[in-house]
Amino acid sequence: MHYKTSLYVYTMLTHSEYLGIIEQSLKEISYPSSPAGLYAPVKYTLDCGGKRLRPVLTLACCEAFGADPRSAVNQASGIEMFHNFTLLHDDVMDHADMRRGRPTVHTRWGDRTAILSGDAMLSMATDMITRGCPDSRMRQVISLFYRTAMEIYEGQQYDMDFEDRTDVSVEEYMDMIRLKTSVLLGCACEMGALMAGAPADSCRAMYSYGEKLGLAFQLQDDYLDTYGDPIVFGKEIGGDIINDKKTWLLITAMAEDRTGVLAREISSPSEPAHKIESVRGVYDSLGLPARCRAIIGRYVDEAIACLDRAALTPAAREFFVEIAEKSRTRQN
Amino acid sequence: MHYKTSLYVYTMLTHSEYLGIIEQSLKEISYPSSPAGLYAPVKYTLDCGGKRLRPVLTLACCEAFGADPRSAVNQASGIEMFHNFTLLHDDVMDHADMRRGRPTVHTRWGDRTAILSGDAMLSMATDMITRGCPDSRMRQVISLFYRTAMEIYEGQQYDMDFEDRTDVSVEEYMDMIRLKTSVLLGCACEMGALMAGAPADSCRAMYSYGEKLGLAFQLQDDYLDTYGDPIVFGKEIGGDIINDKKTWLLITAMAEDRTGVLAREISSPSEPAHKIESVRGVYDSLGLPARCRAIIGRYVDEAIACLDRAALTPAAREFFVEIAEKSRTRQN
Repeated sequence: MHYKTSLYVYTMLTHSEYLGIIEQSLKEISYPSSPAGLYAPVKYTLDCGGKRLRPVLTLACCEAFGADPRSAVNQASGIEMFHNFTLLHDDVMDHADMRRGRPTVHTRWGDRTAILSGDAMLSMATDMITRGCPDSRMRQVISLFYRTAMEIYEGQQYDMDFEDRTDVSVEEYMDMIRLKTSVLLGCACEMGALMAGAPADSCRAMYSYGEKLGLAFQLQDDYLDTYGDPIVFGKEIGGDIINDKKTWLLITAMAEDRTGVLAREISSPSEPAHKIESVRGVYDSLGLPARCRAIIGRYVDEAIACLDRAALTPAAREFFVEIAEKSRTRQN
Repeated sequence: MHYKTSLYVYTMLTHSEYLGIIEQSLKEISYPSSPAGLYAPVKYTLDCGGKRLRPVLTLACCEAFGADPRSAVNQASGIEMFHNFTLLHDDVMDHADMRRGRPTVHTRWGDRTAILSGDAMLSMATDMITRGCPDSRMRQVISLFYRTAMEIYEGQQYDMDFEDRTDVSVEEYMDMIRLKTSVLLGCACEMGALMAGAPADSCRAMYSYGEKLGLAFQLQDDYLDTYGDPIVFGKEIGGDIINDKKTWLLITAMAEDRTGVLAREISSPSEPAHKIESVRGVYDSLGLPARCRAIIGRYVDEAIACLDRAALTPAAREFFVEIAEKSRTRQN
């Protein structure tokens, strides 16, 4: 009877229902048939699956503040398009051959096509963000998306800068992943809230929730790259160690290792399987796995605490708590 | 007395005054100091000069329909930013080392930085387009810019596709340069008219003017690459011939040459200076220089004819006629 009028009767769709709306919306994007070289890689990139966490957050945040989640479906899809554009260009920049078990776009079509199709995805994403957006919210939506995009480029630049540096601090690393990864989760949440016309306090709170969640998410990703189960994680373990990727684990270990093993494995690495075992041994001896999980847990707690500053129904709160809790323990 | 109220007293700023407004606006863009790797190439790219033809057209079209040209300065600068983004990414895709007498961004900073800085320029350009734009015109402005961007990517894709083809027709070539080059001039003109609140007929007419002008402009560029004076043109002559670049000249000659010289120079080229001389000889014998100039002249005429469908003052009409006439005879 009081559906959508009383705060406490109101319920949310399920995670998989949001996912269904997104997959449907992405499937319905119509691409011109020509030039195929431009549009086929865009479709290929979006077809490759992924968790669709960001657009799910957008739809859920929109519904959490009392609007039809479908009213934010263009914004949700635009954010997913943008996310996939960054992956596509990052893969060119990082010379990554595989993603989600398939050849990357530049491996399959070459660098030129990957650059150009990525550009098209960025323009398409930006356009999608504005579609179906009421005039009254247009400026806020555009400005949130623009600020987020610039921060993500900054994060990617810092990430590349870090490759040539040996003095990266944990603080710098955390700020880099905040920019490169977390702000887009913050944006996804705030975008949904904005589309529902949520009060400014709630918009800010949901942004912070997404941001903290993103930090936990990236740390967990780094953790799983070294400590995950390759079958469950879906990719080989130890890639970060082989590439001396400056993650929380490596940066912390570089500052604390007194055995010289880590420095030796970086300057003159042993063969891959041995290097992974040996570096992981250093991490273990410093107690890094437990310390990393503790930090992840702290960010999950902080994300959940943000929810108290947003005017959420118990059902909505529970939805976002569940997503956060999952990122504490997820194995893939 | 009747300044800006009577159609026929109203005057325009000069080309160099519009240029001054643009240069000032581009100079005033403030870039974060960090990460320098991201923003230094953006500034470098915009500092490198160029004709600024597109933003000048935007300001002039805005003033032509009775508004302060400065009210479209963000849109004009955004279009120039977008144009420079396409040049930056095109240079990566084409492995071009030099542009306007200076090393290209990817030559100086590497491919990764060039890709990422280009992405940032595209986002910045898109944001600039919306700045200072009244809510009532926002959707039209965004939609015009988006459609244009997608067409430009399509044009670049066709241009790359043509490299591997030997059966490109003149019609396909003209459609490719329309997409790759002309639509941005059309967009620049219509954007200024839109910002001034010009009637829809006039907006369309100015778009067509820019589009025809762009075709003349690109054909003249191709012509000068083979027949220009290297001192005046500012770069070496014959690059297109050396690279078998599919221009109007080459495509037409491939269809008409019965001597076999052209086919031989493509399949087993002689040394560069000789190849240029020999291919130019084929062009000359087919009368291509005069025929190319005649087609350029036809597009200039068509551009000027578009002006009759726009509600322009004599002063404004004269301004746009002069730009078109210049592109008939320009040497650089």
